[in-house]
Amino acid sequence: MDIKHSVKQIAQNAQAASRQLARISTIVKNKALLQMADELIKNTDQLLAANALDITEAKKLALSEAMIDRLALTKLTIEDMARGFREVAALPDPTGKVSAMSRRPNGLLVGRMRIPLGVIGIIYESRPNVTADASALCLKSGNAVILRGGSEAINSNRAICSLLQRVLRKNRLPVAAIQVIPTTEREVVYEMLQLEEYIDLIIPRGGEELIRAVVAQSKIPVIKHYKGVCHIFVDASADMEMAVNICRNAKAQRPGVCNALETMLVHKDIARKFLPRAAEELSKANVSLKGCNKTRRILKDIAAATEADWYAEYLDLILAVRIVDNIDEAIAHIEKYGSLHTEAIITSDYTNSQRFLNEVNSSTVLVNASTRFSDGFELGLGAEIGISTTKLHAFGPMGLEELTTAKFIIYGNGQVRT
Amino acid sequence: MDIKHSVKQIAQNAQAASRQLARISTIVKNKALLQMADELIKNTDQLLAANALDITEAKKLALSEAMIDRLALTKLTIEDMARGFREVAALPDPTGKVSAMSRRPNGLLVGRMRIPLGVIGIIYESRPNVTADASALCLKSGNAVILRGGSEAINSNRAICSLLQRVLRKNRLPVAAIQVIPTTEREVVYEMLQLEEYIDLIIPRGGEELIRAVVAQSKIPVIKHYKGVCHIFVDASADMEMAVNICRNAKAQRPGVCNALETMLVHKDIARKFLPRAAEELSKANVSLKGCNKTRRILKDIAAATEADWYAEYLDLILAVRIVDNIDEAIAHIEKYGSLHTEAIITSDYTNSQRFLNEVNSSTVLVNASTRFSDGFELGLGAEIGISTTKLHAFGPMGLEELTTAKFIIYGNGQVRT
Repeated sequence: MDIKHSVKQIAQNAQAASRQLARISTIVKNKALLQMADELIKNTDQLLAANALDITEAKKLALSEAMIDRLALTKLTIEDMARGFREVAALPDPTGKVSAMSRRPNGLLVGRMRIPLGVIGIIYESRPNVTADASALCLKSGNAVILRGGSEAINSNRAICSLLQRVLRKNRLPVAAIQVIPTTEREVVYEMLQLEEYIDLIIPRGGEELIRAVVAQSKIPVIKHYKGVCHIFVDASADMEMAVNICRNAKAQRPGVCNALETMLVHKDIARKFLPRAAEELSKANVSLKGCNKTRRILKDIAAATEADWYAEYLDLILAVRIVDNIDEAIAHIEKYGSLHTEAIITSDYTNSQRFLNEVNSSTVLVNASTRFSDGFELGLGAEIGISTTKLHAFGPMGLEELTTAKFIIYGNGQVRT
Repeated sequence: MDIKHSVKQIAQNAQAASRQLARISTIVKNKALLQMADELIKNTDQLLAANALDITEAKKLALSEAMIDRLALTKLTIEDMARGFREVAALPDPTGKVSAMSRRPNGLLVGRMRIPLGVIGIIYESRPNVTADASALCLKSGNAVILRGGSEAINSNRAICSLLQRVLRKNRLPVAAIQVIPTTEREVVYEMLQLEEYIDLIIPRGGEELIRAVVAQSKIPVIKHYKGVCHIFVDASADMEMAVNICRNAKAQRPGVCNALETMLVHKDIARKFLPRAAEELSKANVSLKGCNKTRRILKDIAAATEADWYAEYLDLILAVRIVDNIDEAIAHIEKYGSLHTEAIITSDYTNSQRFLNEVNSSTVLVNASTRFSDGFELGLGAEIGISTTKLHAFGPMGLEELTTAKFIIYGNGQVRT
């Protein structure tokens, strides 16, 4: 069977499964999720053996340490996966909720009921934990999932999927609710992205290049963020220690993630006092700074920031610094160079806090808190399938509710249109 | 200037305008909307003159009567446009609304604030009223709009746009908030669809072919429906007169629209009584029927429905009829042949009404009411920019709220991530 044909078959099976899944009670879904957690733990050895095949192959291909690290399964990471399933089981089911029920003048009772999206395609790199996490979130929200992970993780992903499918089968749930694409050919992705008739949403997770390729090829709606160039604006009235503390946390606590700080904008009236103090603390955390000309008049031995630095997502212990004249200049900088991801202001000024919250239209905007809080768990969504900087459907961290949509339901008693 | 360059310029101007627009108060937007209504009325002669150029050209090109009818402006249609602006001014502004504000364990106060999407591109056929309606809805919701209407309407669209821009200018609002693409080259559409950096949403309105071409080319999210193959299932327990009345209304009240009935599914236990009665009433409304074999054993002189009829969106006084054994067969038929648009059940049975509402995941599902109610005005949205059968972002009729998204806003007092 050729690739085109077999991908289509997978998608058709997923659609059929999604229709059954939409009718399954929360109790049954939760039971399956808990059994999946147990199944992963019980078969740790089998998962480790499959993963070892991938690791051996990755080493032969001389993949980077970082890649092999993300690819590797351990007893601990398998326990994490299992915990993920249990946590998702404990979350409320977003489907079936009816909101905004109201009576129209002609007597029609109109409401909106949340329903699963249907079939979700996840395209990601070689991280087997995504296979488990995405399966749990999709099952709980009543969606069928098609998983297309990096080819380096194929044995691990197939092993995880086969355990999850065993639980589906045991509970008489549709086995095609969770499917891993079993081949590694690159054309599979292109074929998947054409199947708008069967797949409702594509979520790509990985580097910017992967995501751009997916967007360019897809006929199916895509939810994604390309990058997170997050800003903190330290206003003139900022509490000095709070500002230093938040900037260090936002930059250095976990520099490789999308909600880490990349550019610090500093009001000119506080720069002489704030910058030396901040530089001292940031250097303790091994952060190196790149500054605008004005910044370098205060911090004389740091590197010069070029135009490219304002666009950069370093994902590393590097921080760009710019002095601005006022909040307008800070907001204009964010509009020009930002990525609509996450921005914060540190201020004691009421008007400026409100202006920043109202005028900066990034997906997450904070006052006096670290950008690292832009995260589904931290914001109370209970789980996270990803972060969207696409303004459509979901903007910002996405939890279970964002994996659903709402249909109109209408109760009448014979009404016709006049 | 080449097309690529000039479309990009239009989009960049729109983005700049959208950022200003997001900060404009409702009072100012409403004032402009009311002035726009007056401006259209005051310049009726100028609009009719521009439209006459388009009509002359259309007649030279021997366009169909129906097309010329949609293209033509009259004093009455201009009054309708003006009324549209006044009605939109009277609706509540969806932006700025903060919902779901809650306190996290660490003290962060987290909420979601509705904001405009940004820049919306509308691609449509030669209907100048869409130019006016879409401008009103986008302005009210704080979005800049780029209008790409059919080339046959270019003079009318430019004339409308120039009046609206005059009002924007007078109110010191950004003129690029409403722009009509001033050229008719086809490449413009392709170039527009690549500009994901500047345009946030594309709404195509028109025939299925136009919409499919837009989806295939767009890097920007598209909200659309390809077609509306709407079903009514007449259950065994249906009230006979109600069923006849609703089916006639759904099919014949306005057959050329997407929420008109296309296929009637009839429970076998009511078919012998219901079908002759329904056929009689439908024939009075000049509806011709096409039936399955079982139907034709009851209605002997109607045409046979083929497989293609079950997929057909007639948009005409034709109705496909199929007898089914039970509600499961009805739902399965809808799943296979439906377009996720609008479906209704006529029943007196509690269980079946609930099953239909829960299990049919089309964007609008009704009990005992006409499919013609699937409409933003009828469902209480106050306005309608279109109907979506894409499950993402908005599913079903879309009003002002669906032209916005929500960002997370977070009030802290120094919180960092640990």
